[in-house]
Amino acid sequence: MKLNVDNFLPNLSITCVVIGFEDDELKVLTLKWKKANLWTLPVGFIEKNIDIDHSAIRILQNRTGLKLPFSEQFHTFGSLERRKHASNKIISKYFSQVSEDFAEWVDQRFVGVAYVSLVDIQKCNITPDTYSDTCEWIAIDKIPKLLYDHNQMIDMAIQFLRVKLNYLPFGISLMPEKFTMKQLQKLYECILQKKLDRGNFQRKILKLNILIRLEKQKNGGGHMPPYLYKFDKEAYDALVEKGIGFTS
Amino acid sequence: MKLNVDNFLPNLSITCVVIGFEDDELKVLTLKWKKANLWTLPVGFIEKNIDIDHSAIRILQNRTGLKLPFSEQFHTFGSLERRKHASNKIISKYFSQVSEDFAEWVDQRFVGVAYVSLVDIQKCNITPDTYSDTCEWIAIDKIPKLLYDHNQMIDMAIQFLRVKLNYLPFGISLMPEKFTMKQLQKLYECILQKKLDRGNFQRKILKLNILIRLEKQKNGGGHMPPYLYKFDKEAYDALVEKGIGFTS
Repeated sequence: MKLNVDNFLPNLSITCVVIGFEDDELKVLTLKWKKANLWTLPVGFIEKNIDIDHSAIRILQNRTGLKLPFSEQFHTFGSLERRKHASNKIISKYFSQVSEDFAEWVDQRFVGVAYVSLVDIQKCNITPDTYSDTCEWIAIDKIPKLLYDHNQMIDMAIQFLRVKLNYLPFGISLMPEKFTMKQLQKLYECILQKKLDRGNFQRKILKLNILIRLEKQKNGGGHMPPYLYKFDKEAYDALVEKGIGFTS
Repeated sequence: MKLNVDNFLPNLSITCVVIGFEDDELKVLTLKWKKANLWTLPVGFIEKNIDIDHSAIRILQNRTGLKLPFSEQFHTFGSLERRKHASNKIISKYFSQVSEDFAEWVDQRFVGVAYVSLVDIQKCNITPDTYSDTCEWIAIDKIPKLLYDHNQMIDMAIQFLRVKLNYLPFGISLMPEKFTMKQLQKLYECILQKKLDRGNFQRKILKLNILIRLEKQKNGGGHMPPYLYKFDKEAYDALVEKGIGFTS
C-alpha cells in the first residue's frame, strides 16, 4: 500500500505503547519490519483532516482488533536527539524500497505524540502493519533495542502509570474479568518495579471498595484455593472521578 | 520583527500556561494583541533545529524574565475544533497587517504542545511579545475569552496540577520564600477549587516533613500572629522522588 504523503501533516507522528498483562508479566506490542531485523512500536501519521486522538485510536484499532481500545496521551517527544536514535540512514534505506517519495518525506525531523493503551491480551487480535511481517507481545524486560526513541517511550509510559497508581484505581482494562488478589498485586508490582507486602496491599486495595469477591478459584492447587475477584465497575468509575490520595 | 517561517516546523506551536499565586489567588499570564481586543496565552513556534522543550523554555524566558523557569509539558492539543475556536478569519486578518506570508502560514492547522509553568510573580519581569502591547497577570476567575482553545488549556493545566497535589509535594516554585500555613492552604484550595479543613490540612502537610517553621509573622494583625514557614528544599526534592500516596 502506498501512502500519499500529501494527505498527512508533516513532521508529526503518533506512537502507541500498547501494554498487556499475561503470565504475571507486563508485555508490550512490538512490530518487526519486513525482511529486516528492525523492531518498533506501532506508529502512524496524522491525516490532515483527522484529530490526533482519533488518529491514535485508528492505529490501535488496526493493530489490536479492539473496537474501543483505552488510550491516553502521555507525552510528546520532540528532541533533536530522536533522529540520532533513529539510525536515519537505515530507515531511509528501508523505505526507499517502498517509495522514494515516502523515504524522503519520512527522512525529516518528526515530533512524536505518544499514547499508552492498556489492553486485555486475550481480547486482542493483533495484526502487523504494511511494513511489518510480525507483531508480537514481548515481556517488558525482554524488549529488544527498538528504532527511534521507542525504548525510552516505554520507560516513560511505565513511569506515567506508576504515578497513576498513586491517585487512581488501576487495572480494569488490563486484567481478565476474574482474577486473584495475588495476580492484582503482581500487576502493581510490575508497574512499581518493586515487591509489595501481601497483607498491606490486600488491606489497602480492599479499603478502596472497588472489588467484588467471587467464588474460590477451581484447580487453584494446594489445599487453600484463593478467592477470585472482579472489579465493581460502578464503584471503580466513581473513584476515578474522586481520586485517591493526599487531598481526598 | 518579521518571522522567517522557513525556519520553523509547520503545523506545530507551543503554548505556555504561566501560573503565579498572589493575594491568595491563582493568576495567569495573558497577552493582548496590538490595537485589538484579542487576548491569548504566550505562544511560540519551533525552530527546525531546536528541541520542543527548549523552545518552551525560550518562550518562558522571554515572557517572564526568569532564567530557569520551571516548566512541564502537560498535553498536546490536536483536535480539528481548534480552528473553529480560533476565529481564524480574525487571526488571519490580524496577521495580514504583519506580513502576507506569515498570515498564510499561520492560517493552517496547528497542533499545540502545551506547557505549564509555575512561577513566583514577584521574581518575574514580564514583557509582551512582538504582536502584543500588554502582558498582564489576570486572576484565574477573571480571565476573558481567549483566542484558540486557550481557556480550555488553562482548565486542563489546573486539572493537571490537581492530580499532582495527590502524589507530590507542591508549591515550591509558586510561593514566596516565607509564607504562613494559611497562605499554603489557600494555594491548595485554589488548585482544588474547594475549601479544606484547617486542622486536617495542617496535620497532613506537617506530616510530609517538608516545611521548616520560622519566626512569627510581624505585623500579622490580631493578638496571635501566625508562624512563618519555608520549604525544606532537600526534603521536598527527596519526596518528589519518592512520591506520596497509595503505594508509598
